[in-house]
Amino acid sequence: MTGFSPPDFTAARFASAPDATFVPAPADGVLPDGFFSTTNLPTYAKIGGGWRLPREPRMDSALVLDAAGILWVREGRRVKAGERVAVGVAEDGSEGIYVHATAFLDPEGPSEFKFMTSDVSREKPIEYAIMARLLIDERERGGYPIWVAGPALVHSRARADMVWFIEHGFVAALLAGNAVAVHDIEASIFGTSLGVGGSGQAAVGGHGLHMRAINQVRAAGSIAEAVRRGIITSGIMHACVRHGVPFVLTGSIRDDGPLPDVITDAIAGQDAMKRHTTKATMAILIATALHAIATGNMLPAFVTNPDGSLRELPTVCVDSSEFVVSKLKDRGTHQAFGVVTNAQDFMHILRLYVERELDARGLGEATAQNASGLVLAR
Amino acid sequence: MTGFSPPDFTAARFASAPDATFVPAPADGVLPDGFFSTTNLPTYAKIGGGWRLPREPRMDSALVLDAAGILWVREGRRVKAGERVAVGVAEDGSEGIYVHATAFLDPEGPSEFKFMTSDVSREKPIEYAIMARLLIDERERGGYPIWVAGPALVHSRARADMVWFIEHGFVAALLAGNAVAVHDIEASIFGTSLGVGGSGQAAVGGHGLHMRAINQVRAAGSIAEAVRRGIITSGIMHACVRHGVPFVLTGSIRDDGPLPDVITDAIAGQDAMKRHTTKATMAILIATALHAIATGNMLPAFVTNPDGSLRELPTVCVDSSEFVVSKLKDRGTHQAFGVVTNAQDFMHILRLYVERELDARGLGEATAQNASGLVLAR
Amino acid sequence: MTGFSPPDFTAARFASAPDATFVPAPADGVLPDGFFSTTNLPTYAKIGGGWRLPREPRMDSALVLDAAGILWVREGRRVKAGERVAVGVAEDGSEGIYVHATAFLDPEGPSEFKFMTSDVSREKPIEYAIMARLLIDERERGGYPIWVAGPALVHSRARADMVWFIEHGFVAALLAGNAVAVHDIEASIFGTSLGVGGSGQAAVGGHGLHMRAINQVRAAGSIAEAVRRGIITSGIMHACVRHGVPFVLTGSIRDDGPLPDVITDAIAGQDAMKRHTTKATMAILIATALHAIATGNMLPAFVTNPDGSLRELPTVCVDSSEFVVSKLKDRGTHQAFGVVTNAQDFMHILRLYVERELDARGLGEATAQNASGLVLAR
Amino acid sequence: MTGFSPPDFTAARFASAPDATFVPAPADGVLPDGFFSTTNLPTYAKIGGGWRLPREPRMDSALVLDAAGILWVREGRRVKAGERVAVGVAEDGSEGIYVHATAFLDPEGPSEFKFMTSDVSREKPIEYAIMARLLIDERERGGYPIWVAGPALVHSRARADMVWFIEHGFVAALLAGNAVAVHDIEASIFGTSLGVGGSGQAAVGGHGLHMRAINQVRAAGSIAEAVRRGIITSGIMHACVRHGVPFVLTGSIRDDGPLPDVITDAIAGQDAMKRHTTKATMAILIATALHAIATGNMLPAFVTNPDGSLRELPTVCVDSSEFVVSKLKDRGTHQAFGVVTNAQDFMHILRLYVERELDARGLGEATAQNASGLVLAR
Repeated sequence: MTGFSPPDFTAARFASAPDATFVPAPADGVLPDGFFSTTNLPTYAKIGGGWRLPREPRMDSALVLDAAGILWVREGRRVKAGERVAVGVAEDGSEGIYVHATAFLDPEGPSEFKFMTSDVSREKPIEYAIMARLLIDERERGGYPIWVAGPALVHSRARADMVWFIEHGFVAALLAGNAVAVHDIEASIFGTSLGVGGSGQAAVGGHGLHMRAINQVRAAGSIAEAVRRGIITSGIMHACVRHGVPFVLTGSIRDDGPLPDVITDAIAGQDAMKRHTTKATMAILIATALHAIATGNMLPAFVTNPDGSLRELPTVCVDSSEFVVSKLKDRGTHQAFGVVTNAQDFMHILRLYVERELDARGLGEATAQNASGLVLAR
Repeated sequence: MTGFSPPDFTAARFASAPDATFVPAPADGVLPDGFFSTTNLPTYAKIGGGWRLPREPRMDSALVLDAAGILWVREGRRVKAGERVAVGVAEDGSEGIYVHATAFLDPEGPSEFKFMTSDVSREKPIEYAIMARLLIDERERGGYPIWVAGPALVHSRARADMVWFIEHGFVAALLAGNAVAVHDIEASIFGTSLGVGGSGQAAVGGHGLHMRAINQVRAAGSIAEAVRRGIITSGIMHACVRHGVPFVLTGSIRDDGPLPDVITDAIAGQDAMKRHTTKATMAILIATALHAIATGNMLPAFVTNPDGSLRELPTVCVDSSEFVVSKLKDRGTHQAFGVVTNAQDFMHILRLYVERELDARGLGEATAQNASGLVLAR
Repeated sequence: MTGFSPPDFTAARFASAPDATFVPAPADGVLPDGFFSTTNLPTYAKIGGGWRLPREPRMDSALVLDAAGILWVREGRRVKAGERVAVGVAEDGSEGIYVHATAFLDPEGPSEFKFMTSDVSREKPIEYAIMARLLIDERERGGYPIWVAGPALVHSRARADMVWFIEHGFVAALLAGNAVAVHDIEASIFGTSLGVGGSGQAAVGGHGLHMRAINQVRAAGSIAEAVRRGIITSGIMHACVRHGVPFVLTGSIRDDGPLPDVITDAIAGQDAMKRHTTKATMAILIATALHAIATGNMLPAFVTNPDGSLRELPTVCVDSSEFVVSKLKDRGTHQAFGVVTNAQDFMHILRLYVERELDARGLGEATAQNASGLVLAR
Repeated sequence: MTGFSPPDFTAARFASAPDATFVPAPADGVLPDGFFSTTNLPTYAKIGGGWRLPREPRMDSALVLDAAGILWVREGRRVKAGERVAVGVAEDGSEGIYVHATAFLDPEGPSEFKFMTSDVSREKPIEYAIMARLLIDERERGGYPIWVAGPALVHSRARADMVWFIEHGFVAALLAGNAVAVHDIEASIFGTSLGVGGSGQAAVGGHGLHMRAINQVRAAGSIAEAVRRGIITSGIMHACVRHGVPFVLTGSIRDDGPLPDVITDAIAGQDAMKRHTTKATMAILIATALHAIATGNMLPAFVTNPDGSLRELPTVCVDSSEFVVSKLKDRGTHQAFGVVTNAQDFMHILRLYVERELDARGLGEATAQNASGLVLAR
């Protein structure tokens, strides 16, 4: 509870301010053009040279001066034709209305009515066009965009889109855990992910399929060898191997197997990740709290340009819940741009926007081919 | 805590079952093909004619019979070359391994190891192709698909896609609240939604813009009249008016204004909604707990065909959180198919799939036109 | 879309069923006692020996036979005094009303209207009394309850309650990660957790305090040594050291430091955890997806009693979101009882119930002492 | 993307700053006391009179000057005994280290590394002691605390605690919807809530019990009359009637029934709510998005004292998810203090703290009585 600091109405800007202007309402329940729209903060109107607080304060309403000279805050629907309604937009007193935003707030803090200011929210628009441009810019200038992903990328069939990004040169390195690779390889070998088929139905005996996939790769000795032998014929890991995109699979206590490529020591894993974060010029973190925060911990908020100047390091964090994004920011990765959505949908739309932007820049395959490509890629 | 019911191994199917088969591991940390993959339930292997429980039970591991004849559950990574590992898939004892799934569970309940069975999860694939087919089927046979939406539809710029669905005949009626219409109309008049522009930045004086939008429509007398007068020139409500799609806007205590078209009495509102739910042949509920559950309450789980037979009423519920979908189901709308994602992304991808399916059926505009249409629609 | 299977009304149970009973409504908008309450499933009433579907089906309403002999589903509020309303509770036809629950559903699946059946929900009551009894039972019979916790246990000041459970013999082993220990030790040394003081305010220079805490323990060589030297003087790790409760701290790529006690290799970490899961007779998993699922993977669903009989292994999973609990169950730990709440509040109330139950069993300190103990423990 | 503004190192405060101080690490993996802990922002150290950026920047690490005079950011675990490590806490250059926090940030925005600054998070401590003091202060000075609640208050057995607050004079008015009253009355008549008993099990025929409860109250004519007739014998509504606490039940399209006391018109409902918000001196909003935001819209952020001075209006918003609290704030109720937890647990602990504080002030019943009261209240 901070104390109350009343405005000093003897100050010149208040003393010289005009009286508030009141205009008759044109009809019952209709306010005059330019009506002053209230907030829930202490609000003073200058009337007859004196500053007054209205009765029944609330937000999203109008200031009404009744026949008896009493000032009210009143909902527009309750205003009658002819009643005197304050007009004006300025909240600093210069038009005779003053919103005392710092009445209780920390004077060092924000000094206005807050509205739609939360940092991370599913209600915010998602800037696919900007992300697409950034991603293409990085590719075109030889940047090093790192992708950090959790298993939702595979569970939810965004797998084809991730393969597309790898194939088209947008992935400098993939940082993930055992599970991403296991589910991806299970999908290649058995057509399921954690025993669930593409249609969302659990397969018979499905609970063991990821273990069988792991066992086949362990028998081969490595993912690359399993690709070479034709055990793994599609998917994200296959694309990384075929296109020479480095991947770091770090271990966790939750891992089954693990796959032979997994770095099981957390410190060695951090060091392997850091070899990529040190080079990173962009980071896309998808559906993983563990790997996103781990990467965020190692990632500078900036890139050093060849000329020694710095630029921001674009960091995008995608998750189904606001919580993961907020936590990433709370752990210090304040620069992250949060996208609250499903990983599958994110990947599909981001790819669509990248394809459009490539076409617009004359870098894409023909539109018609893209369209069929989209179908094939599923 | 339910009591333990041991298996009756004197039963014929157990007595006649063979011993479990054990096969040597081909290498250190590699299991033989067809290894039995354990669960966390009591699991018995038949060895020398007797049924035994292994030591150290856990899931995702193998059954190993050691040199001393002791049976263990062991992680694959710990198995040495040559160790005897049980093989088999059957869990009913017929191959010498019995998983006692009903040991503690209610005998009326499900009788197996549960894995990936949750009803509603962001980890489940989203069946856009199926939804697109259903939606086109309904349009083609003259069905009555109702759309029920919350304000995220407008906040997050799915507005253009919703307009597209209205224009292309996929919306028989729109059921929503005051806020959807207010934000949509604010976007038409001021280019903002709750004072936030398309780029996610709050506009100056933005907190009052929705009140100004409401006031203009109140002055006009109705949404249709505001469209006629050119006050509202784009968006969802505009498209409904122009294409004769009926809408029901029901009131709530949270409403600003409200708009003159809003039915403020909850009972009258229910009656107005029911005139559409009674005719509905499909329901799409997007980003609204209040309106989705209200509609679910009135909606039969089935449609009566002209010949008197019944068919399921496809019901899709889209929300950013599993909670709303689960709550809808808990309130009785058990038939709902849940989609856990962002409303903006859902609309964009659903439209893309509908366009593809229209093309595949020869019902669409040409592919090239669609592609440019997509761009225009932004 | 499953096909429709109409009921076979020639079956004996339908043929021999009586007509449905209709009773006049006692007043406008009031239904007769014992009215039949509808669901959204196809519902047939026997009238004049024939089975009929009503018009305008919906849930939570009544069956009304109007003057013209037409059968309606109607909301109670719309029923007029004297209108004929069906009464009965049976839904199997035996009282003349049949709810065709298997019309579309998989015949192997559940055969009734589903209502409030979701497994995990913040709307479900939390059974603190049962959990308290189980925990005391385990202590009294020498069981081995393992606690698995995430850092929210420390962030949110449940720390004092966790210390109480350790001191009173309810913790056989603590399985956690580096962060739990770091935040707990930061709290002991600096009075903050991630730089945030007990009042929720960030401390000056707070972002580095957890690093300074880690550094002091690294200098000491181990947590136990830091306790011995008086560097760590309170909290969870201190209580474990003082009371000889074993702890396993497993590493992750997200770790700062790490503390010298952390097992950084994921496989070695699993092996260390398994030494406790193999002995566990109860498991309490609090506010950690990673450690909860890792533990669930290793934990049998049952305990083997000394006489060779089995009993269920009580598994409680506490998290702020339904998602983590559902995911744990989806990964196979189906036996988990989910509690959707804040870790701090869970710990405080569980302790309160345990104290009450101890008093009721004559095992507690005196009530007055408990009350002051509660205050002290804060 | 904002541009980069390099620091002006010709400024006096930089020119006059000393060189950074480097101290040898005392042991391998151990940093010297007072080490400088890095962030992810551009950080310059003054060495030999010049300002330098280190290589491999990241947060939570140390500045190390190697034998070749190169400056590195290095994790503490990688530092060797004797290596030169920067010490200091100041980030403004005054100790030779400058963190360039405004390198990219909006110069009007926050000017430091952000860490644990999110407004609403389940990771923040819950200030029960402060809330308890505020609530008692309001009661003692004759304030007007309003409680606004959603049905989770009843579902989750916080019902007994709410009754306690009503009985002890902490509730000036209760604002809720039809559902709160229906579930509360169902619990009084049938012992269930939405057909679910206290143990969490669904009752047979349970889906209709709330309709039967509603019907009985409709037959009686009002809640007060149903209390008078002995139909409702316990619970929240019973306590309001018995203790003369006014309640406002506002309608929504989701309502079953509704109960005869429900104001079905949204505008009339708002007016009825506003009669209480205008008098409110404190607001507690529990587990309801609709009613919380509706109330927030009408509630000033301040109370006018009898002497004309103003004070903040304490507003507490409790919800299981960060989203509802953030949305309330985004809709303008910026003053709300968010508590992310389960409603049941919140009520139970808040009551416990209020009881303790009453005892501490000599206003409570005796401690022993409280303790038994707690048991009775279950």
